[in-house]
Parts: sequence; C-alpha cells; structure tokens
Amino acid sequence: MKVTLNRNAFLEELATVQRAISGKTTIPILTGVKVDLTESGLTLTGSNADISIETFLSIEDEEANMIIESTGSIVLQARFFNEIIRKLPESTLTLELIENNQVIISSGKALFNVNGLNSENYPHLPVIDNQNTFELSARVLNKLVSETVFAVSQHESRPILTGVHFVLENNELLAVATDSHRLSQRTITLNDVNTSFDIVVPGKSLQELSRSFKDEEEMVEISIMENQVLFKTEGMNFYSRLLEGNYPDTNRLIPTNFSTEIEFNVPELLSAIDRASLLSHEGRNNIVKLSINSEQVIIYGNSPEIGNVEEALNYIKVTGEPIDISFNPDYMKASLKSFGAIDVVIKFISPIRPFTLQPNDDEINFIQLITPVRTN
Amino acid sequence: MKVTLNRNAFLEELATVQRAISGKTTIPILTGVKVDLTESGLTLTGSNADISIETFLSIEDEEANMIIESTGSIVLQARFFNEIIRKLPESTLTLELIENNQVIISSGKALFNVNGLNSENYPHLPVIDNQNTFELSARVLNKLVSETVFAVSQHESRPILTGVHFVLENNELLAVATDSHRLSQRTITLNDVNTSFDIVVPGKSLQELSRSFKDEEEMVEISIMENQVLFKTEGMNFYSRLLEGNYPDTNRLIPTNFSTEIEFNVPELLSAIDRASLLSHEGRNNIVKLSINSEQVIIYGNSPEIGNVEEALNYIKVTGEPIDISFNPDYMKASLKSFGAIDVVIKFISPIRPFTLQPNDDEINFIQLITPVRTN
Repeated sequence: MKVTLNRNAFLEELATVQRAISGKTTIPILTGVKVDLTESGLTLTGSNADISIETFLSIEDEEANMIIESTGSIVLQARFFNEIIRKLPESTLTLELIENNQVIISSGKALFNVNGLNSENYPHLPVIDNQNTFELSARVLNKLVSETVFAVSQHESRPILTGVHFVLENNELLAVATDSHRLSQRTITLNDVNTSFDIVVPGKSLQELSRSFKDEEEMVEISIMENQVLFKTEGMNFYSRLLEGNYPDTNRLIPTNFSTEIEFNVPELLSAIDRASLLSHEGRNNIVKLSINSEQVIIYGNSPEIGNVEEALNYIKVTGEPIDISFNPDYMKASLKSFGAIDVVIKFISPIRPFTLQPNDDEINFIQLITPVRTN
Repeated sequence: MKVTLNRNAFLEELATVQRAISGKTTIPILTGVKVDLTESGLTLTGSNADISIETFLSIEDEEANMIIESTGSIVLQARFFNEIIRKLPESTLTLELIENNQVIISSGKALFNVNGLNSENYPHLPVIDNQNTFELSARVLNKLVSETVFAVSQHESRPILTGVHFVLENNELLAVATDSHRLSQRTITLNDVNTSFDIVVPGKSLQELSRSFKDEEEMVEISIMENQVLFKTEGMNFYSRLLEGNYPDTNRLIPTNFSTEIEFNVPELLSAIDRASLLSHEGRNNIVKLSINSEQVIIYGNSPEIGNVEEALNYIKVTGEPIDISFNPDYMKASLKSFGAIDVVIKFISPIRPFTLQPNDDEINFIQLITPVRTN
C-alpha cells in the first residue's frame, strides 16, 4: 500500500470517521481507523458500538490529487494518526505500508514510522440491502433531527426513550421524541415513497449524523434493515444500530381542547425565560411561574438564597381563561430554541395538564408538549 | 444607593474585577463583588488570597452615561450578578439598594431583587504609599511577563520558585523565572528611575494582570511595599501579594563558554519540535533527541508502542563540535513560543550541561536556559 495525496482532503475524511471512534472502547482495534486503498480510491472506516462511518475519497477527486502506487489496507491508532497528519509540514503526504504492519508517513523532511494493526482483524460492517430505501436532503434530515432529538431521554432506565421514533406510512414521515416530561413531534410529507417502516434511532447517533454532512444540499439515501439503518451520501456511509423494543403510543398524549391560548415571539420569550431561570437554577426546585390574564403576562423566578425576578412579557395575542402555571425553564428553553426565530402559539388546559407549543401558522406538522410542575 | 448606567460599560468593569474573585474561597464575602457608589463614580472590588482588583468608573465617563441618584455600597454575589447584568434586556440598567441589603436590578420590564451582604464586612485593601514607584507601559510589562512567567514552577514544594523575581537596580530591571529545569531571564533598561527593589511576584498574579489591561498603550504605575505590589492604571488598581523568602542566585547558572552554536528560525523549529514530541508524549520518557553535525541537524522522537519520527531540520548556521543532546520537548516549545517569529541562537556545552537560547541580535538582554535529559 502506497499513496500520495493532499493533506487537507485527507484530514477532512479523517475528521468524519473520527466521529465514530471512541478512545474508551474495550475493543482495541476499534480505537483505530481502517485505511483501505484500492485502485479506485481510499476508504476510511471508524466504528463503535452504536455507529460506524465509512468515507470514500475517489481517485478522481481533484482536490485530493491522489497518486496510488500500490493497494492494501491497515488499521492505525486514530488519535495519533490524526494529530500526525494535522501537523505535517507540507500540503501533500505519502502513506506507505512496509513490513510488520508498519506505516511510513512522510511529508517534506518529516518522516513518521508508526505501528499499525492487521486490517483483517477489523470487524465487518453490516451488509444493507436496498429494499427499504428512500431519500431526503441533508437539510431536511438535519431539521427533523434538531426539532426532535433534544427531547430524547438522557437516562438508560427506559432505553427506548433515548431514541427518536420514526414512522413512515402513506408518504408521511413522523419523527417523535419524548423523555416522559416533554415531547416533540414533527411530520413531513414525502413524494412517491414506496416503503413504510417503524424504527427507533439512538439520539446520539442522530446528533453525530447531523454533524457529519459536508453540504446541506446533498441527498441522503436512507436504507433500513432489521437492526441497522444506513445514511448514505456520495462520499459517506453512516451506519447506526436501531433500538429494540416498542415505542410508546404518543399520539394519544396530545391534547385537542384548550382553555387558554397565547402567542409569543420566540426570541423575546426565550430571553425572558433565560433571565427568569437564572435564579431558579440555584434553588431546589428549578421552576419558573407564568401568570397569564387578559391584562398582563408575567414570568416569575426565585431562589430563597439569592433573590427573585419578575418580568412583564411582551406577547402578540392572548385568549381564554387566566392561568398560573409553573414549569421547568430548561424544557421551555430547549423547546423554544428548536423553533428558531418565529412566532409560537402556546395552549394550556389547566395548571396540572401538559401544554402544547406550535408554530403560529396553520399546518399542524410540528407540535411540542411540556408537562407542568405542580405547586401548591 | 441608586444609579442608572450603560450596561456594557458596567459589564466591562465587572469582568475585570471578576478575575480576582474565586468561587472556591472559604471566606463567603470574598465570593462577592463590592459595589461602592460615591458622587464621583462607581468603584467595584474583587479579591482573593493572592490578588485584589479595584476598578473605577467615573461620573464623567461618556460611554457609562451614569446618573447617580444616591450614594452607598453593597456586596453582591459575583457569579449571579454578572450573569444577571449580562442577560438584561436593555442597554441601560438601574441598581438600587433598598432595605435589608437587598438590591433591585432593573432594565426594561425585567426586575431582579437580589440579596446582598453588608459592605462593612468586606476586607480592606492594603494601603500603599508612593515611595517605591516607577512606570512602565502595559505593552512592556506584558512582554516582560510573557517572556518569563511560563518558566515559573507549578509545584508548591519550593514556593519561592512559583513567582517571577524582579530586581531593579541602577535603572536596570531584571525579571527571571526558573522551575530548576529551565530558566528565562529578561533585562530592560529604564530611564530615570529613582528607586530600587528586589521582589518575587506570584506567577498566577502576573498572568491575571496581563489579561486585565484594556489598552496596551496605557501607562502602569508600579508601587512596591513590604509584602504587596500595586499595578495602577487610570481605571484600575491591581494588588498582588509578594512571595516571601530568598530567591536563588540565578546569575551564576548562566554559562559563558560553549562548544556548539546553531541558529534557527523559531516558527520552523517550533513546528518540527511539535511533530517530534507527538509520539514522545506518550512514552515513559517525554524526550526528543537533537543530533547536530556540520552536514545535517536531525530531530528524533519515539514511543515504543506507537512508533518513531525523524526530521532533518532547516537551520540558518551551525558552528563548533557535533553534539547529540536529549531534552523535554515541552520546555523547548514553551521557550520558543516566548520568542515569537524571530531567529534564535542555541548554544551547547555538552550533552549533560544546560544549553542557552537567545535572540540572534547582539544585545544579551533575553536569555533562556534548558537542562538536557541524560540518556545512555
């Protein structure tokens, strides 16, 4: 195996597969990156228990400017490999596999000789068939993820809730996440998809996935197998395991009748909640109180040791009954952030029933639910 | 006490005194910032066991645009105070002391009511006379600090070595730091200073000091007392305690006869050392080897587990005997960084004697010493 190529092009591939490589794994070969050189180009692979990422740099890539002298493969310690490549003195580098799994990395006058591992011992990636396949743009996929993934559970007590539930049926793709205190659900309509599925993808996999796209406009081909999903772009295969088990029925949780409705500008409400939560964060109960009546809307926060805060909120419109309701400001902040700079409608039933948040437009394709905190 | 002022101007002052405030102190009132309002302006104070910082915002400061309705003083929890001010909705804010040490902080519709502490319980800052006083620009002072402070000891086993030794005599100001493995010494000539002293200032104080100046061109008045030093600028008083004890005589450590001399461009040498140290960092002995002869200069690094690296170095000029010498690359990197993008002359006596580094110009006012590591 011997190849000369552009350092930055190589570094970019390395950075992508590195997302799947953990220094903490108990399987030594998985701390490495697998380098595979064929006549058509260079494949890098990184993997951990949850995700595997494979990138491909084609011999025809102009920026990479690859000169392949001989093919072969090797596994190299990911952390060092990356640091070495990053610090090389020139804009091109040469990788050469010599005897005993040793690799010479050279650039300018610098010459590293590093110990690799036999690539035959590297685990095989799952084989995915192309039965259950559909396409989304990276932009739409990233939006779907960012609108839901924040609401997955961080606790392993109910593992199924650490994932986002995706259901595709009749050209409708539903994504929903809940940690049982709050819920976020998004529906999008796809065109002419001849497949249907019901899967739960780990939230952490989705977060890594959404950081791995090079270009928001590229198309992502999504293939679903029994216990794996593959997200495939032109230069990358991103595999994630699926979570096993039944996801709870979340549809029945979403209320339909309300007694109070109020409309806010999201950035304004977000900064006010942020201020109100400054002190409540320090108290035993991390709650803020919202008090709505037809004349004014006030948010309260307090900490017995430090002090208290109140602020009259600007709002666009309010209808229905007066209400005083307390909630965890962190849930509210995460929810508001996922909306971006739009106006949002919040609908309440009572101080002890979950309330909903939705964009103020007519379509009901994005809805969030937050359970309030009972106070006396 | 009641004042209305510009939020950003106030935040800037807060950020400065915050450098002296530690959340870890065992003296509760020192987790606070003291706010003092007189008819001439606003003084903020922060303090810990090592340093105290006092800033003054004048009633005449145009950006601050202060309206003082009544004077007074209070101590407020620094961490919350800063966060509250930072998140206020408008560009001005009002601070008002009401009964029971409570302070109302208001801006726009947001209204915080926070608990303060009686400012009479705040410790008094040292009184400094103006006997031992001289002036330096912030730029010169910062340079002096950055050229020496990296070499102070990080260990408390010999507390005196955790400081920088400053000696002023006959208009010559000497600054020297050593952790007994390496040393950095800088001398500058001052004009018409009618004072002399011999003090050791804690390295940590100097690091905070050099981050606290608003403007590199401002003049700093330095006053020295028995166990304190005051660095005074127009808007800030920065006090540091001095270290007690005798600083070792470092002059006799600096060699004068050498067998090998070599000249390098600092940025080039620094990146090569950086590469060579990538692998040695992982080994038991964090050392790299430099091998100099009249034909070539090579740097070597290795780790038994990961591999090895060698690189032929570019150099400007070499004279004297061939030498192979091993050293801790971290000391070399810290030393080179303090020189900036210049050329440096390194002079060796033997593989077991300390070597010197100096700028390649004639003046011998900046010299560093690194002790090599003996290998067999």
